Amino acid sequence: MFEVEVKYRVPSHDVIKDKLKSLNAKFLEHTEETDIYFNSPVRDFAKTDEALRVRVYGDGTVVLTYKGPRIGSIGKTREELSVTVNDLESLLEILRKLDFREVAKVVKRRDIYNYENFTIYVDSVEELGSFVEVETMVNDKELIDKATEEVLQLGNKLGLRRDWIERKTYLELMLERQGLNKP
Amino acid sequence: MFEVEVKYRVPSHDVIKDKLKSLNAKFLEHTEETDIYFNSPVRDFAKTDEALRVRVYGDGTVVLTYKGPRIGSIGKTREELSVTVNDLESLLEILRKLDFREVAKVVKRRDIYNYENFTIYVDSVEELGSFVEVETMVNDKELIDKATEEVLQLGNKLGLRRDWIERKTYLELMLERQGLNKP
Repeated sequence: MFEVEVKYRVPSHDVIKDKLKSLNAKFLEHTEETDIYFNSPVRDFAKTDEALRVRVYGDGTVVLTYKGPRIGSIGKTREELSVTVNDLESLLEILRKLDFREVAKVVKRRDIYNYENFTIYVDSVEELGSFVEVETMVNDKELIDKATEEVLQLGNKLGLRRDWIERKTYLELMLERQGLNKP
Repeated sequence: MFEVEVKYRVPSHDVIKDKLKSLNAKFLEHTEETDIYFNSPVRDFAKTDEALRVRVYGDGTVVLTYKGPRIGSIGKTREELSVTVNDLESLLEILRKLDFREVAKVVKRRDIYNYENFTIYVDSVEELGSFVEVETMVNDKELIDKATEEVLQLGNKLGLRRDWIERKTYLELMLERQGLNKP
C-alpha cells in the first residue's frame, strides 16, 4: 500500500473545521500520538529519507513503522510497513540492543475526519504548531499521481493554500528545531 | 528476566518421557515452532553471541526476540527481550528494510512439561535430531549459578547425562550443518 498524503502548515484550525463541517466530512476520532523516531546504525535515515518510528497511541497501542523514501514530487508518498507490538518498553530495548538510536520525539493531538476516500488529520504538534494532512491510500504505484491530484483538489475545497504545503516530515521539522540537522 | 537453561542432545525421548511421568511432571502443551534467525548489518551475531529471532507458533502467534550473549559457563543463560507482533510478513519485510539478513530457519515440534519451578522442553528439531531442554527463570543475575545447579540436579533425576549437554544453540547447530560456520 502507498500512502498519498499532502501536509499543510496552517495559521489556525478554525477555517478548516468549518469547511469540514460544510462538506459533511465525518469526524472519526480524537487521538494523541507520541512518536519516537530512530536512526539506523548503518546509514543516516535523514539522508536516505527513510524513517523508523515507534508510535504510542493514547489508548496504549504500540505500532512499529518503517517508512521508505518519498516517491512523489509534491506530496509525501512513501511505502509504509507497520506492525502492532504488545510491549513498548521491550520494543524500545530491542531497538537499542540492535543499535538503533532515538533521535526525536514528536507529540501530537489529532482530530481525524473521513471524506469520501480521504482521511483528513487536523494536527496540533507540540513545539511545531498547527497542521492539516490530507491522505488517501493506493495499491499501485501507477495510481500515485492521480491520487495526489485528487488530494490537492480536496485541499482546495477545504481552503488550504498551495503555498502552505509543507513537504518536510514532523521528524525533519523537529530535527531542524533541535538544530541537529545543520549542515 | 534471565532464562537459565541447559540443553541435552538425547538418543531418544523414550526414557525422559517415562521419567517425567514418574515425577508427575505436568504436561502443558504441544507446540510447533518455526524460528527464523537474522544477522545484524553492524556486527556478526555469530561472533558476538547474540541472536535476533522471529518465532512463529503453530497457532500463528508471532514473537520477535533479541537474545544477549550467554552469561553462565555450563548452561546457556542469556538476557532475553521479546515482543508479540501482529503481522509476520510485515515484520519480516521491516527487518529486511533495516538490513537484517535471514541466516537460518529452525523448525521444531516440542512437548512442554512443568515440574516445580522448571519447564522441560522435549524437542524434535528438523535436520538436527532429539533434544531436551530444562529451564527456569530468575530475576537477578546473582541467582543464576544457584538456578543452574538446580537445573542440573533435575537433569540428573530425569536421566539426562552430563556428557549429553549441548551448549550450542539450535541456530549454531543449524549453521554448522549448513557449513556456513566454517572458520
